[in-house]
Amino acid sequence: MFKAPKDVKRVASIGGGPIGGGWTAHFLARGYDVTTYLHSEAEIPAFRTILDTAWISLTALGLAEGASLDRLTIETDIEKAVEGADFIQESAPENLEMKQELYRRLGEVVPKDVVIGSSTSGLMMSDIQAKCATPERTVIGHPFNPPYLLPLVEIVGGDNTVPEAVQWAGEFYRIAGKAPLMMKKEIPGFVATRLQEALWREALHMVANGEATPEDIDIALMNGPAPRMMAQGQCMAFHVACGEGGMATNLDQFGPALKLPWTRLEAPELTQELRDRMVEGCNDIAGDQHFSDMATQRDKEIVALLNALRASRDDG
Amino acid sequence: MFKAPKDVKRVASIGGGPIGGGWTAHFLARGYDVTTYLHSEAEIPAFRTILDTAWISLTALGLAEGASLDRLTIETDIEKAVEGADFIQESAPENLEMKQELYRRLGEVVPKDVVIGSSTSGLMMSDIQAKCATPERTVIGHPFNPPYLLPLVEIVGGDNTVPEAVQWAGEFYRIAGKAPLMMKKEIPGFVATRLQEALWREALHMVANGEATPEDIDIALMNGPAPRMMAQGQCMAFHVACGEGGMATNLDQFGPALKLPWTRLEAPELTQELRDRMVEGCNDIAGDQHFSDMATQRDKEIVALLNALRASRDDG
Repeated sequence: MFKAPKDVKRVASIGGGPIGGGWTAHFLARGYDVTTYLHSEAEIPAFRTILDTAWISLTALGLAEGASLDRLTIETDIEKAVEGADFIQESAPENLEMKQELYRRLGEVVPKDVVIGSSTSGLMMSDIQAKCATPERTVIGHPFNPPYLLPLVEIVGGDNTVPEAVQWAGEFYRIAGKAPLMMKKEIPGFVATRLQEALWREALHMVANGEATPEDIDIALMNGPAPRMMAQGQCMAFHVACGEGGMATNLDQFGPALKLPWTRLEAPELTQELRDRMVEGCNDIAGDQHFSDMATQRDKEIVALLNALRASRDDG
Repeated sequence: MFKAPKDVKRVASIGGGPIGGGWTAHFLARGYDVTTYLHSEAEIPAFRTILDTAWISLTALGLAEGASLDRLTIETDIEKAVEGADFIQESAPENLEMKQELYRRLGEVVPKDVVIGSSTSGLMMSDIQAKCATPERTVIGHPFNPPYLLPLVEIVGGDNTVPEAVQWAGEFYRIAGKAPLMMKKEIPGFVATRLQEALWREALHMVANGEATPEDIDIALMNGPAPRMMAQGQCMAFHVACGEGGMATNLDQFGPALKLPWTRLEAPELTQELRDRMVEGCNDIAGDQHFSDMATQRDKEIVALLNALRASRDDG
């Protein structure tokens, strides 16, 4: 049904803001031909600035062979912009009616074997695709800002998306150098923003209550959870910190702490089912790695991160 | 009243677990003489393993001049352990009665011009110091695990701690290579754990509801929020992402999103006072830096972090 993800040559990117511009730069850096749709030519200077800024970082991260800013075409006619594209990344403004109208139009002019991914952070694909005559190939492909730097892309379909399109998108983004997260359900905020939003709202509560200043919040995050969370997500961080017993020990030992007022968010009941899911999930990630090897690798990575940050700051 | 923090030569570290061991290694690496109290000689082999593991990372981070594992003395007599110490880091088990009894004893044998910092993550200093006859110099000095790697130390006094002791601890930890966070109040979970716990409980809710697996949670964190949060805390991340308008624009634009179900934690009311605190706090951190320079520095740091992590993984 769909062209093999590895055979994608041309990407169309819709939208010239920081997200659309970031995506354009990313795909160019991975060696694709890119056609970007801008609403008007007046947007070109600001769009070029976004590209030039992103290109500095992308070059430092390493460009794909043949990657070039010269492989960009800018179009202000949407039909011309999507012509010949093997994949479409849509980063139009976050307005449901506008997106619905856009997908209605794309549904007519884009061949139905071309997957369309939406950068939306706040809308559901089931809603966006409501007026699209060919919704089966429309998916969420939500990047994390800035999209030319952070690897995450959250992927999920809407009610009328076929599973093959979702799988295709996951495979395509992986080939295009991203870290795909295949979501299990359409939920507001997806996964990453939900986690960040919980933290953010707790931060706002603390500032509102005079418990911390914005500076305190940032000192805490940068020097505490963040370096570890870059090497290991929170699940594996707890799993490995608990040694041989892993997540099971964590939940048995710190389970009671879930009832403590350590945040204003109430924890779910720690049922046997939740415990099993957490333990089995961590065991799946760990595979046959011994906890001590994972701890050694964690330490090595955190050291590399701290040294890199220090060098980057001394230098800048 | 207290010796100048820069004149500290000998640190006593109480406790031989991962936290006490991590602190011992850290202080040795910063060039201090350290005496560590262990409950019994039977703990020595496990303690040595913690030190040796930590030393690999500390060496890679860079040892202070003259730093050596040979400058460690192990004692199983608490009075001998604290003798001659200019600062005491206490990492005894998380048991209030045990800590109260320990501080009662320390209060008698440690000169009252020596500050005692507790590694406790879950107890309040006002409670820990309850039976101590010289509580004015007792403070929380809570590290983030692993303490030999993560820079954060959260500092706060109890009801009977004098402000000078808290200030002294902040200055001492800074000189000793840590990133001190001077807390505004004694609150359960302090600052960093509260932020992490909000995120963690949202993660548990998502797993409980089949919205995400532990692997999804970790993919999201490692590839999305974490790299950015290591370069900039969440406050400055939002401030800089909103360009010229900064945090004010963020709150005006995304304020309504605080009411959306993007996490199960309800946000506080965005009052004028909270808005002002957030905006002024971010402006204070930014100082006279222009947002575009901060964005450039952010990108440079994230690139350095991503490249360092990749190199560390290719290599390991």
